[in-house]
Amino acid sequence: MRAPQHILETALYADDLDRAEQFYGGILKLEKVSRVADRHVFFRCGQAMLLIFNPAETVKPSHNPDMPVPVHGAHGAGHMCFAATGSQLDDIATSLRQGGVAIEADFQWPGGARSIYVRDPAGNSIEFAEPRLWGFDETIANG
Amino acid sequence: MRAPQHILETALYADDLDRAEQFYGGILKLEKVSRVADRHVFFRCGQAMLLIFNPAETVKPSHNPDMPVPVHGAHGAGHMCFAATGSQLDDIATSLRQGGVAIEADFQWPGGARSIYVRDPAGNSIEFAEPRLWGFDETIANG
Repeated sequence: MRAPQHILETALYADDLDRAEQFYGGILKLEKVSRVADRHVFFRCGQAMLLIFNPAETVKPSHNPDMPVPVHGAHGAGHMCFAATGSQLDDIATSLRQGGVAIEADFQWPGGARSIYVRDPAGNSIEFAEPRLWGFDETIANG
Repeated sequence: MRAPQHILETALYADDLDRAEQFYGGILKLEKVSRVADRHVFFRCGQAMLLIFNPAETVKPSHNPDMPVPVHGAHGAGHMCFAATGSQLDDIATSLRQGGVAIEADFQWPGGARSIYVRDPAGNSIEFAEPRLWGFDETIANG
């Protein structure tokens, strides 16, 4: 087989999906694709999905024999990172502060790429970083 | 601000990084970018990174004032999904079985997209799915 070439879904966990939806949809303005009661809220981000699950629900086995979705569910602070250009980082930092979200860290890595870190309402460590952090072209931040 | 348009990093947690490296690098053939002792092993996947962290290490605060990377670390089964076309899914299923990895689930969603699920050595739920599951073009699976 050839190695996978694209990550389709990234998942984080949150006990309070209303607060997650306010953060990812309201402040970050990601497009909400699906919300199922107290189980999950899903967002589109460019060519991928950000899935926020309530682990208290996703650890319960599926009862649909046609869709035997395996159980999962994690606790503690997870991590993910969005790509952003330098000017986008300035806009993001401003919007986060206006939304009452504290900037936990804002620094440059040895190679010069800048990263900003905040906490989502569940305590997950959310980073915004310039794509050159990993040698990618800046344009990928535009989707 | 404009909503983020690209997910740069997806993270999972594993206590045993050697086994994680064998799975993601050895069986899935992802390109290893970095391994730091017992703290993490990082892989490239197309235009994004898959980061595998040992939560026992990442919960420890940074002691470098120039790079105050926030702490994080989760326990329990996380989730992520790689994109794959229908024919790639067949190849992946074969390679996984040859690598001694059991297929936990293999089914089609109501819209027709096929998903395969396995467990990584840490117990994370790893999915391989056709991009149309979320309305994306099949070609994104090719990076």
